Parts: sequence; structure tokens; C-alpha cells
Amino acid sequence: MRTSIATVSVSGTLTEKLTAIAAAGFDGVEIFENDLLVCPHPPEEIRARAADLGLGIDLYQPFRDFEAVPAPVLAANLERAEHKFRVMERLGADLLLVCSNVSPAAIDDDGLAAEQLRRLTERAAEHGIRIAYEALAWGRHVNEYLHAWRIVRMADHPDLGTCLDSFHILSRGSDPIGIEAIPGEKIFFLQLADAPLLAMDVLQWSRHYRCFPGQGTLDLAGLVRHVLNTGYTGPLSLEVFNDHFRQADTARTARDGMRSLIALEQTLHGAVHPAVPTGFAFAELAGTDSLGDVLSALGFAPTGSHAGKPVELWTQGEARLLLNATGADPALIAIGLDSPDPAGAVEHAETLLSPVLPRERAPQDAPLDAIAAPDGTEIFFCDTTWLGDFGAVQTVPGQITRIDHVALTQPWHHFDEAALFYRSVLGLHPQESLELPDPYGLLRSKAMSTMPASGAAAGAAEQVRMVLNIAQVGAGDTPWQHVALASDDLPAVARRLRAEHPELLLPIPGNYYDDLEARHDVDPELRRLGVLYDRDEHGEFLHLYTVTVGRVFFEIVQRIGGYQGYGAVNAPIRLAVQHAGHPKMSE
Amino acid sequence: MRTSIATVSVSGTLTEKLTAIAAAGFDGVEIFENDLLVCPHPPEEIRARAADLGLGIDLYQPFRDFEAVPAPVLAANLERAEHKFRVMERLGADLLLVCSNVSPAAIDDDGLAAEQLRRLTERAAEHGIRIAYEALAWGRHVNEYLHAWRIVRMADHPDLGTCLDSFHILSRGSDPIGIEAIPGEKIFFLQLADAPLLAMDVLQWSRHYRCFPGQGTLDLAGLVRHVLNTGYTGPLSLEVFNDHFRQADTARTARDGMRSLIALEQTLHGAVHPAVPTGFAFAELAGTDSLGDVLSALGFAPTGSHAGKPVELWTQGEARLLLNATGADPALIAIGLDSPDPAGAVEHAETLLSPVLPRERAPQDAPLDAIAAPDGTEIFFCDTTWLGDFGAVQTVPGQITRIDHVALTQPWHHFDEAALFYRSVLGLHPQESLELPDPYGLLRSKAMSTMPASGAAAGAAEQVRMVLNIAQVGAGDTPWQHVALASDDLPAVARRLRAEHPELLLPIPGNYYDDLEARHDVDPELRRLGVLYDRDEHGEFLHLYTVTVGRVFFEIVQRIGGYQGYGAVNAPIRLAVQHAGHPKMSE
Repeated sequence: MRTSIATVSVSGTLTEKLTAIAAAGFDGVEIFENDLLVCPHPPEEIRARAADLGLGIDLYQPFRDFEAVPAPVLAANLERAEHKFRVMERLGADLLLVCSNVSPAAIDDDGLAAEQLRRLTERAAEHGIRIAYEALAWGRHVNEYLHAWRIVRMADHPDLGTCLDSFHILSRGSDPIGIEAIPGEKIFFLQLADAPLLAMDVLQWSRHYRCFPGQGTLDLAGLVRHVLNTGYTGPLSLEVFNDHFRQADTARTARDGMRSLIALEQTLHGAVHPAVPTGFAFAELAGTDSLGDVLSALGFAPTGSHAGKPVELWTQGEARLLLNATGADPALIAIGLDSPDPAGAVEHAETLLSPVLPRERAPQDAPLDAIAAPDGTEIFFCDTTWLGDFGAVQTVPGQITRIDHVALTQPWHHFDEAALFYRSVLGLHPQESLELPDPYGLLRSKAMSTMPASGAAAGAAEQVRMVLNIAQVGAGDTPWQHVALASDDLPAVARRLRAEHPELLLPIPGNYYDDLEARHDVDPELRRLGVLYDRDEHGEFLHLYTVTVGRVFFEIVQRIGGYQGYGAVNAPIRLAVQHAGHPKMSE
Repeated sequence: MRTSIATVSVSGTLTEKLTAIAAAGFDGVEIFENDLLVCPHPPEEIRARAADLGLGIDLYQPFRDFEAVPAPVLAANLERAEHKFRVMERLGADLLLVCSNVSPAAIDDDGLAAEQLRRLTERAAEHGIRIAYEALAWGRHVNEYLHAWRIVRMADHPDLGTCLDSFHILSRGSDPIGIEAIPGEKIFFLQLADAPLLAMDVLQWSRHYRCFPGQGTLDLAGLVRHVLNTGYTGPLSLEVFNDHFRQADTARTARDGMRSLIALEQTLHGAVHPAVPTGFAFAELAGTDSLGDVLSALGFAPTGSHAGKPVELWTQGEARLLLNATGADPALIAIGLDSPDPAGAVEHAETLLSPVLPRERAPQDAPLDAIAAPDGTEIFFCDTTWLGDFGAVQTVPGQITRIDHVALTQPWHHFDEAALFYRSVLGLHPQESLELPDPYGLLRSKAMSTMPASGAAAGAAEQVRMVLNIAQVGAGDTPWQHVALASDDLPAVARRLRAEHPELLLPIPGNYYDDLEARHDVDPELRRLGVLYDRDEHGEFLHLYTVTVGRVFFEIVQRIGGYQGYGAVNAPIRLAVQHAGHPKMSE
């Protein structure tokens, strides 16, 4: 399908926007009027620039507060429209978006609205311009898409149609199935925006928090299916107002918008996710010496070395960690995912504009298919052959059984992009989104896993889970990443660490246990061991943290019953202790 | 009155918070439970620390979801309370805040709520602890302060009272006059928070956007008067949840909180603002050479030199600008305000914790009373004697008559502080608050003036106006300051500049005029001159901008009729042109 995007969706000057939008592969743009007004170039130059870039100008918007007004106002509004028509002719745009009137002066009279829109369309038609009438969610009298369609039908002019906007429809909770009542040729335009679910005034929500399809919680694919069922053949056009996008890198945002449309089309075509991982093959860490000491203390043992690279494999149960001696500061640099079809997974990621990493390997090495995540972390898709590169790997039994999840810290303005990446490229499902107090700010956290949020507790152990964290409000600098390791007997792990390596355990305040014991009837040993506790309706959760080495720390977790969370209630404790500068292991 | 503040209102660890709160001069604190839980020190040490700092622990909070529950839940809740009582004994706190139940399990039965609160209070009394019951604005069944009071009266226990919170009362639109129905001795605590008017879910509003009294739009003084009329003698305690405060400097936020309480008490005592300025005496700019050229072009002339400092006075009409050769990069460094009582103004500022600047002057110089604004700009309070330092000043007639307003750029996290400073120290009234799109972000702007927002258009010319700008969302770096100069004949100024110094005029895109002419029937000369236009219900506004020199540019404005605004509708045009890197004058 034709792809388009409103210029307001990305940052920059109008010419910067057009260049980035074309580079991202869009077919056309909606010119947002304010972007033109502040632009030093006349409409003719913008028209030529867009043409040179291969971009069609699919829509000019918005024209406001036109219809259902008293006669003297109508005359002024038609005069105002004539100015716009002249600008559109110079711009080479032939479709004008008219938003439903929000003015207190608007009259609640569908017949009057239809008659005046018809007059506007007659004038527009003299310029070869068509009109798309849209119900704003906060329109004075017209705020439902079917109401706008009723008025368009009453007006009955071939050059007047309706514009549908997913945000205006879904934010009000309107059922999009009614779209199928509209003939496809009368839907002149389709604007798409997703949004997180927020309990706020819909105008503010719309103006500041829209996002690209797949980054929020609205069912965009369901809505678009209804539109396609009408026979609509126009563009899928992104129209997003977002405070973060306004200041993010123009090219990166445009590319992310294109990724969201590609993912949406894949969903519409019922495409499966060939990249859905079935488990963690490994996590790869840079900075060997100090991390090796921690891993030994946790019960891991080195069980193999890469034939051609300075990489050691450490194992315990099914948990596999690679220590890469090439890195400087200890950090999580790569994640290996068990994949049923590694080559297909990379091909799928490529269709979604993800950078594929070059394979630097010796002829005898196993083929490794890898891509870069938005934060630069390398994601490898693995079958079992990769282990062969490390020689004959022995089994190391222990109290730790496997990797439960990994947590990555995203730059704050890449959070939406990262959520879309893990959803579309890896097929993960968004789970809980949280805001956690930190002594110096708020931390925003989003969990994603291979299990839908509605999934049953059964099979919890088999999920691949990732947690994306950002410091939501500026100053709080929390670049920590961590690997959470699963154990079937966390108290045993804690007892051994406390006896042999107490310096590795993050100290937990006694005040935490005073409160925990007020809330739950827990084993007093938890306090002695420094183990944290949570429970949900499915089960219980025990966990502990190590101190931080470089950017990395480890969490050991035990899920009892079908516990689905991540102990988020305890994260503020961890953050406060980490910020308080408690002993970090020297590197 | 006794002053207190909840620890959640400022950033940092609990000990950092206590230190900053004591340094700011508060008498006591509310310990917010989460701050204690994440703290490595046991309650006894916090008690000792607070005592050493001279801080009372006035309240422990919050205890949630206690009352109006089925019998088995009550037993568990009483057990939970016993744990809290023990923590409070160790902490030396004797007042516990109980928030109205928000749980879906709560029963809508006032009698049951009262009976269970009475049982809780009986248990508390055994520990010497009293209970303050508060209606949360989003409480399940109890969300009005008079409803909470009704239940407290039914429970009828001397150690059970109510806690009033200005946010919970005013955010719901409840009339605070009903407070006078409560005997003062049954109001156990008073929490104060202001907030900007936001159309959003009250829980989110409360958790993220509260601010100190005087920084928002709620009538705190009116509410507190009702509380004092009951005979209440407890503390005025600040309880603010604010995303910005969470990451701002702890000491600075605490001091600003104390300033807000001092200002509130001054208002309660009916204090006048001795510092209210009657006009602009001068604006002082650093960086002479390049700015001198611009001022000459604008029709200013040097009319005096300071006897003892490298400062020149430039005048035109009643507009006076000082050029200070000591500064490096051109910038606005000081503002002189005509003051009926300069010494009184400084004394008033001192009561509000504003830093008074040392007077560095020769014995023959006029006395100058000055303070520092939050962004470091020096504010001088002047009578007419200061002019004497510049010798016999001649009159320079011209098309520019006086300073209309100055605009300062605030660091984003000092915006609330700056608004309170200009309101409390200078007695300015907040006017319109706006968000303006900028190519790389959003700019937040707040105008303040000596005229109340409700003031009539009459006398508009006599106002002292200031505009505070911040780059609201991160990256957009807009450090520009400007001085707006009033003219009675702006087109004449523009004609002369265009003829003699076209390079000084900020170029305005032709697209702006295409749109302006669609909206208004304006003189076509505006386009030729590059003059911008706005109108409101009181009158019209003409303005133009110079290019930027260092951090500074000039605006020339003409107010026709009673126009009250600042041409904000045109600010995005200016910002886009400034960002586009249009010719800045070389320095």
C-alpha cells in the first residue's frame, strides 16, 4: 500500500523533514500547515523539492472551524479557504483536510454543516481540489467518525469525502466496525496513530502522546482491516504528535515510522514471526577478569573457549554466559536467542529495516546470524551449532538453571522505538509498564515476553523475557543492565553467597523487611539472607541482586507457582541502594 | 506557624532530604514511608538524625486501604498497623496518616468505616499514637473532605482526627468553606500543595504535577484562611509529588518550598508587596561593540557614561539601556525596575530568601539595591537618583518610547521556582501560559505582569511585563533572551530599518503572510516591511525582531488599543527562523 506521513510527526525544518521522510522510503507526505508557514521557501520550491525526492504531496492540513456557522462567518470562512486553495495550487496538493468545528460559535445542525461543506467543495473543485472531512474527537458537535460520514453523505458531492483517523476513533472507544458502512471511494484519506492508554483529557493526549502503530495499545490492525474491507485504496498515513519525536533525530524517527507501517502490513497479511525465540542461547559480556570472579562465585565454570576469538563460555545448568576479553568496561554486549530459523529471522529483521551485522568468522566457525538492537546490543539468532565453536562443552550442574530475563537500559528518547523493535522484529508481547521512584528521578520500565499478556500462567518458565528501562525524567543516570538467572532453590544460592562471598550481595535495608513482614507472612530467613520477596495471584517470587561491575549486575530469581512479574515492587529498594554508592566491586 | 514538609517533596536519599529540609529552615517533616524503606539506616538513627538537625517528625504516612473492610481483612489490617506502630515508636513519630480506602474490596458503609477506624485508634493509643484520616480525591467511597470528617465524628475518639490536603479538596472543586464546620482541634494535620490547572485524571495529576503554593493556580491562601478560622494550630506542611522536583537539587527545592510558605503567610497576613515595580528603569547588557551598532541602528544614542565603571547609558524616549563593557558574550545581565521603595523591596526579597547582591559602588554613586533572580539575572530596585551617576543625561526623542517587556530563558527545572520568585518577590501576576512548537521541541512560556490577569485593558501601557521561557522538552537549546521596546509608530521604525539596516531584521517567510492574509484583512505593507501581526478582543499588535547578537535580540512592538498579549501566535515563526541559522550579526 502507499505509505505517507504528516510532516508534524518528525522534528526539524520542512526541508529536513522531507529529506528524512524520502530517505525512509515513504511514497508521500501530508504537509502540516505550520511547517510550511515557518519555512523560508515558497510553496513552489517545496513542491519541486518533494518531486525531486520522489514524494507526493498527498494532503494539506488542517483547515479548521469551517462548517455549521452563521452566514456572515461562512463568507469569511470561504474567503479564508480561497487563500488556502491558492497555496495548495502552488504546492501541487489536491486534497484538503477539514477538521470538524471546535468553535463555541458552531451550530448543532447537520443539514447546515452539510450545505456549507458542499459549498466549500464546489469552490475547491474549481481549483481541482477535493475535501476530506474528519471528526475530531473533541469536535464541538461532530466528534464521531460516523457522524462526519453522515454529514458527508448529506452533502452529496463527488469531491467531498471523509478522512478517518485511528486516534480520533479509538481514543473515544468508538467501534471501528462501523467503518464498513462507508463506501471505500468516499474514504479519501486514512491517518494512523497509536497511543499508550492514558487517563487524561483527549486533546492533551492527542497533542503530546501519540505514537507510531505498534508502540501503543490501540488495535490499529483491526481498524485498518475494516478500512480495507470497504475497498479503500489510498495511503496508510502516519500522523503523530509526540513531544519526544519533536526533538528526536529526524531521520531515525522517519525510519521508525516506516518500520511501524511495514510491521502493520505484515500483521495485516497474517505474517508469522519467524524470529520468535524459544529461549536464551547465551548472554555475552565484555570485561572478563572481574566478571569471571563474580561468575565463579555464582557457581559458573568456564567450559570452553572459542577456537578463534578471545571469548570464554561459562555455564551452569542451561545458563550460558560468554565473557569477551575484547571489551573494556564490563557491559552486556550481545544476546543469543534460540531460534527455529536463524536465517529467516535475520531476513525478517531486514524487512523491518534492522541493521544486519556483518559476519566476521573463520571458515570453520558456525554461521551466526545477528542484528543490532536500537541500543546497539547485538542480537544473535542461534541453532545449536554455535556451541561447537567452543569445543566439547561439559555440563556444570548447579543451583542456577537458566537465564530468566535480561534488562537493557534505553536512551529515553528511543524507548518507543525499542518497544516497536522487540515487538515487530522478535515478536515479543508488551507486558506491564511501570514508573518506579528512584532517589533522583523516575524510572520507566516495560517488560516484554514471548507470551501474550493474556497468556495463562502455565508455561511461564519457557518464556523469553526482556525488560526495557529508561530514566524517564532527565537527570537520573541509571545506565545499568542486568542478567537475571533462574534458580530452583534461591535460598540455597543466597546461603552459599552469604557464607562465601558476602561482599557480592547488594545489601538490603532492614526497614524493607519491617515493611515486608507487615504485608506478608514470610520466612524470617529472607531477612538474614537479604532475599527480596513478591507475590501475585499466580504465585511467589524470590530474588536477590549482586553489586554492580561496570554497567552490569546479576539478579538471581526463583519463580514459585505461576508468578508472572519481575519483582517491580522491590526495584525502588534496589535503585536506592545502588544510588547510595554501596560498595561496588572494584574492577 | 510551624512549617513542615513531606520527604517525598524533594529528591535524594532520606538523610540528604533531612539535611536540606533543616537547612531551609523547616520545623518538621512528614516521613514518607517509601523514603524510609529504601534507607539503609534504622528508624532509631533517622530519629536521632532529625533531632540533631532540630527537625520534629510531625507525621508518618501513608497507611492505606484500612477501613470499611470485611472482618477477616480487618484482622490482617490491624496486624499490619501494629507493625507500623512499632516502626513509629522507633522513629519517634506519634501521628499516622490513614488515607481513605481505594480498594475495590472496600464497603460503602460509613458506620463500618467509623467503627473500624475507632478500633485502629484504640490500638494506636496504646502506643501513644494518634490517627489522622484523610479523604483521597480518588478514594473508593470516601473522596470528599467533609465525608471523611463525618466518619471521624461518628467514630468519636479523642485520638482520631482528620487530615486536610489542599490538593485533594481543590482538585475536585469542593468548596473549602465547609472546613469551618470542623472544630480546629479535630484537624490533626494540614497538607498543602498547589497545582497547575490540567485536564487529566486526578490521580496522575496528583502524582506528577503538584507544586508548591504560589506555583500553580489553586487558591491556597483562601483554603488556609478557612482552616485557621477553625482554631487549627498545627503545622503548614508541604506535600508535593512532582516529576521535576524528584530530580532537582535537593537543597534548592527545599529552600523554594520554604519560600512558598513564607509567601503564603505574608498573603495570609495581608502583606502588601513593597517591591511591586512601577516601570522599567533600564535593562543592562554585556558586550558593547556589536550591541552598540544595533542600538544606533534602532535610534538609540549614548547619553552618558558611568563615573566609575565601564558602563554606557543609551537612551531613546523613556527606554534606557546600559551597555556594560565588562561582559564577554552579549547577554542581558541586569534589569532595573522603578521602585517606590527600593530599600523596602530588598528587605522584602530577603524575607523570601532571595540572595541580596553586595553593593560595589564608589561613595559618590547613588545607592543601588539589588537581588539575584533564580537564573542569575540581577534585579535592581531604583528611584531616580541612579541616573545621576551618568552625568547630565540628555533627552533623545525617537520612534521608540520605552521598554515594553523583557524575556528571560530559565533552565527547565527552575521554571516553577522562577514563577514563584517573580510572583512573591516582585508581586507580578501570572498571565497566559503557552506551549509553542519549535522545529526541535516545544517551548513553554509564561507571561507575568503587574496587572492581574482579570485586569481591564485600560492602563495596559503602564504595566511591567516579564516573559519566562523554557525549552520544555530536552534537546531544544533556546537560550535566547530579549528586550522588547515599545513604539507608537512601528511601521516607521520598520521602514527606516529596512532602508538603512536590512541586515538587522529577522527575515519573515512569505508563507507567513499568505496565511496572515487568509486570517485577517491586513495592510499589505506588513509583508514588505517584515512586520508581524496579531489581534485579540482588546486591540491589535504589530511587532518585528532583530537578528540575534550573542544570546540577545530585540523586539519592537506596538500595542494598538488594549491588546494584552505578546504575539505568541507568531513566536513559532521567530523560533523557526532563528533555528534555521539565518544571518546572525557577527560579533
